[in-house]
Amino acid sequence: MSDVASTLEGWYALHDFRSIDWTAWKAADDEERAGALEELHTFLQQWGNMEQDKSGSTAVYSIVGQKADFVFMHLRETLEELNAVETEFNKTTFAEYTIKSYSYVSIVELSNYLASGDGDPKSNPEILARLQPILPKSKHICFYPMNKKRDLNDNWYMLTMDERRTMMRSHGMIGRGYAGKVKQIITGSVGLDDWEWGVTLFSDDPIHFKKLVYEMRFDEVSARFGEFGSFYVGNLLNEQLFEDLLKV
Amino acid sequence: MSDVASTLEGWYALHDFRSIDWTAWKAADDEERAGALEELHTFLQQWGNMEQDKSGSTAVYSIVGQKADFVFMHLRETLEELNAVETEFNKTTFAEYTIKSYSYVSIVELSNYLASGDGDPKSNPEILARLQPILPKSKHICFYPMNKKRDLNDNWYMLTMDERRTMMRSHGMIGRGYAGKVKQIITGSVGLDDWEWGVTLFSDDPIHFKKLVYEMRFDEVSARFGEFGSFYVGNLLNEQLFEDLLKV
Amino acid sequence: MSDVASTLEGWYALHDFRSIDWTAWKAADDEERAGALEELHTFLQQWGNMEQDKSGSTAVYSIVGQKADFVFMHLRETLEELNAVETEFNKTTFAEYTIKSYSYVSIVELSNYLASGDGDPKSNPEILARLQPILPKSKHICFYPMNKKRDLNDNWYMLTMDERRTMMRSHGMIGRGYAGKVKQIITGSVGLDDWEWGVTLFSDDPIHFKKLVYEMRFDEVSARFGEFGSFYVGNLLNEQLFEDLLKV
Amino acid sequence: MSDVASTLEGWYALHDFRSIDWTAWKAADDEERAGALEELHTFLQQWGNMEQDKSGSTAVYSIVGQKADFVFMHLRETLEELNAVETEFNKTTFAEYTIKSYSYVSIVELSNYLASGDGDPKSNPEILARLQPILPKSKHICFYPMNKKRDLNDNWYMLTMDERRTMMRSHGMIGRGYAGKVKQIITGSVGLDDWEWGVTLFSDDPIHFKKLVYEMRFDEVSARFGEFGSFYVGNLLNEQLFEDLLKV
Amino acid sequence: MSDVASTLEGWYALHDFRSIDWTAWKAADDEERAGALEELHTFLQQWGNMEQDKSGSTAVYSIVGQKADFVFMHLRETLEELNAVETEFNKTTFAEYTIKSYSYVSIVELSNYLASGDGDPKSNPEILARLQPILPKSKHICFYPMNKKRDLNDNWYMLTMDERRTMMRSHGMIGRGYAGKVKQIITGSVGLDDWEWGVTLFSDDPIHFKKLVYEMRFDEVSARFGEFGSFYVGNLLNEQLFEDLLKV
Repeated sequence: MSDVASTLEGWYALHDFRSIDWTAWKAADDEERAGALEELHTFLQQWGNMEQDKSGSTAVYSIVGQKADFVFMHLRETLEELNAVETEFNKTTFAEYTIKSYSYVSIVELSNYLASGDGDPKSNPEILARLQPILPKSKHICFYPMNKKRDLNDNWYMLTMDERRTMMRSHGMIGRGYAGKVKQIITGSVGLDDWEWGVTLFSDDPIHFKKLVYEMRFDEVSARFGEFGSFYVGNLLNEQLFEDLLKV
Repeated sequence: MSDVASTLEGWYALHDFRSIDWTAWKAADDEERAGALEELHTFLQQWGNMEQDKSGSTAVYSIVGQKADFVFMHLRETLEELNAVETEFNKTTFAEYTIKSYSYVSIVELSNYLASGDGDPKSNPEILARLQPILPKSKHICFYPMNKKRDLNDNWYMLTMDERRTMMRSHGMIGRGYAGKVKQIITGSVGLDDWEWGVTLFSDDPIHFKKLVYEMRFDEVSARFGEFGSFYVGNLLNEQLFEDLLKV
Repeated sequence: MSDVASTLEGWYALHDFRSIDWTAWKAADDEERAGALEELHTFLQQWGNMEQDKSGSTAVYSIVGQKADFVFMHLRETLEELNAVETEFNKTTFAEYTIKSYSYVSIVELSNYLASGDGDPKSNPEILARLQPILPKSKHICFYPMNKKRDLNDNWYMLTMDERRTMMRSHGMIGRGYAGKVKQIITGSVGLDDWEWGVTLFSDDPIHFKKLVYEMRFDEVSARFGEFGSFYVGNLLNEQLFEDLLKV
Repeated sequence: MSDVASTLEGWYALHDFRSIDWTAWKAADDEERAGALEELHTFLQQWGNMEQDKSGSTAVYSIVGQKADFVFMHLRETLEELNAVETEFNKTTFAEYTIKSYSYVSIVELSNYLASGDGDPKSNPEILARLQPILPKSKHICFYPMNKKRDLNDNWYMLTMDERRTMMRSHGMIGRGYAGKVKQIITGSVGLDDWEWGVTLFSDDPIHFKKLVYEMRFDEVSARFGEFGSFYVGNLLNEQLFEDLLKV
Repeated sequence: MSDVASTLEGWYALHDFRSIDWTAWKAADDEERAGALEELHTFLQQWGNMEQDKSGSTAVYSIVGQKADFVFMHLRETLEELNAVETEFNKTTFAEYTIKSYSYVSIVELSNYLASGDGDPKSNPEILARLQPILPKSKHICFYPMNKKRDLNDNWYMLTMDERRTMMRSHGMIGRGYAGKVKQIITGSVGLDDWEWGVTLFSDDPIHFKKLVYEMRFDEVSARFGEFGSFYVGNLLNEQLFEDLLKV
């Protein structure tokens, strides 16, 4: 396995995209809606407390366009906890007014292409913080899943470790140019979901998503080897904004 | 980033394609329908005023064939505003009689392949007008999303800036041949939606859409590097025409 | 544009494939069904009169298999008229018992690969008749959309005009072998719908569809450059046969 | 056309895959269910009589897994008859408890790659029996549609007749190794449905399906040129077994 | 057939993925839900007894994310038995509260790439136990279907037996590195379902799924020849956990 980049894994991730069934939501009576909002309120409180405890993190954003109306991005210690939070939501009254649109299962991942160093990396608090991150409260989110291509001469997995390391270094340089503008969480999903990685970007200005992804596309890693799924972009929802979204 | 064409971005764009649920619309009583039409009227008024203010623009067209019955193409200053107009529509009674069919999130983009010049381009009123365009009221619309290919030897992103510039120039020449016949709005969607660009064409004669796209297909940029999504064509809807469409 | 085959365009085309909601149709009461049949009768009358006037043409066929139960193939002067006939049908009671399954927007096209001659071709009555054809009443129909490939070395749009003309000539020779057996209507859809062409074949014996398409598949134009969508085949529906189809 | 393998065509084929709407079926009252079973009984009787008359053949099998619950494979003289049997079924009460899942339109085909001989092959009773086959009542069925690839260097339709004949001969040898174990019906669907051929296999032991298709996959015809759609496998349904399936 | 790896087949397999219709489940009255839970209890008992008898095996796991809520993985002696267990479930009241999401039909398979030895392998109790395995009760499951590629120069089926054997040996070495951590069941589905193999992994720690599949991806067999379908991961459900899942 000397030629395989080793990886460090942190919290499990579930991106849970939902649409709102507006017709049903509007047809509900005030009491029903109030109950559903109370459930939502309880979840948001719990998730906030959990972030205080550093036992997990959940980001909540609206999604622009018809693909979905909002996303919960959950980070949890175990796959059982991810399943539990998903099921708990499914059992609420509020969930009856939502329609599943897409989900993604993965795990926070740090790759060692760029790393060096001795000792157990998980004993390094900085690395641990990156493996178990409290998700930013930036104004905007961008999510997309991706593969590294295996297409005849453009086969990432047939390159040597050195070739891959060199390209990943250049790739990382572009990312560093967006330090302070874009926060990036890479989650690995080989063996967990249909693509190999999930990329979640956070920024206060969505133009950075476009600039960053576009600039990277000319980089050989993306240009020759990147294969991309659907892109989702959206705006931060705190409790007030979520209530506004749902006000009818 | 010297080899990456820089881009200028203007207003955010949401193409919102919808079908009409004719069975439900016909089953509604007169009062319900009148209320829905009133909502539609209010939107169209607001969107007209907004164009007066130059704070955004919305085009409204019917779509031919089963893919959709109509499209709202919204241009707004921010992603939050796009989300707001979408949500506001979703909460109407009229929206209950529509079915989502497709949407596209992007941002008005000018690429510098063809540009030259000093100073801040956004201080140039002509450029600003192209970044924040009031959409034409031409008789017909054509929309399609597209990528530049990254397929083995046909990989746009592995070409040099010079190669790309030369090809884009020839591409631009074809477009110029349709000046006065077709108005073209390019929106970038790298990092925002599933394709890299959206192309929206406006013309008083739909035959120009076919002629233009067909001629371009023989151009190397399209022939070797163009990858196209679904095409939507339709006819202008003003308030009267929209009411006629909905008269049952 | 010297290297691009020029094309002549005639009537706009809408292929409108529908399934019947048999459960709802059978559950309707006799009066409801009689009203729906009356609407259908009125359409068929109108469309017949329109063919008399040579202001358009509509073919009506059943479709075999689950893809659809019937198709209306409409030819009209303008995109507005196509939209109007589609909307007019959508507003009927009969339409409530149908389910949209597929549609295709295109325009009757003659390509000049094989053509020669001086003067305005549209002043030639024979050409005009091919651009504005009254659709045959053959016993069977076959429809499929297609592209010319742009795949690395198999890129139609990177060939020279001469190469393309030579291949199209050979292609045309095969078609001519079916003269009197198969009537073919080519409609162009570049810039109008998801494929580049629609092919509609009419014949009194469906075995000719298979023989013709199979023979052409060995021709270099199809073998190397043809990319095909879904195929639909069906049987002629006149008013009596349509009523029989709907008798429950 | 000297380089195109000629084909002989027999009966038209419709594979009609359906799922059962179990919730609705169980909710039906006894009388309704008895009526539906009576309709099914009548069809099975008619189809049995038709096989006696040798005017057509219908095979009835359950399908394992969620793709479908059962399939009717109809062979009939004409496309009109296929359409009629499909429509007749759609009008039954029993059909209200089924959901369409997939269908395939094709025609029994013998290719002359392996053939030799003089005279009208259709005057040969053995060939006629293969063109108008009474479908076996084997315990198991396997259906899949397929294409011959046209992908750059792996383009079946750019090979010479000799190359194709040699490969088909080797292919046929594998098939012959399963004589007595697997009965194979090839139906052509070029110009009729979305793939070029349908393959229907019958056997008393489903392991033969796996062994046969797996062995063939190493044969150059399949390895380089075979492109496969979905596979459906199932178990024979006679009237008693169909009633057992539907007993609730 | 000397160049084709021979295979041994054991029990037939059906992976039956389902979602729960939470809205309907919550709307059911207590008695209805109690009846459904009783049906589930009976199945789980039967399946447990069957494992005691070694006449089949069924694994029951929840699935994380929106693809499904749970999976039954059934192993049975015959295709008829698979069909029977599926149908028996479909007829229950509990099934009315579930929605089909995906299924896979295959058969436990041992390939002889790595094998050697004389005599009837099925008389070897160790091999028989691998062909008719009682499924582990590990905490986690991972399922995905896969093909070996047939894409121009990356065509597994055009390699020699020696080339394939060498690569499979290296592949097997990686698997062996996970002995004691991951239990792997390979099921063949050529001729039975849409992919060529199903891979089902069992482990007490889901991180092993990711590590194993990722490490293998750099192995030439996967890197050049592996083609993967959707991945499903989940957590063990015993009767208590299934009841907890369904408690509302």
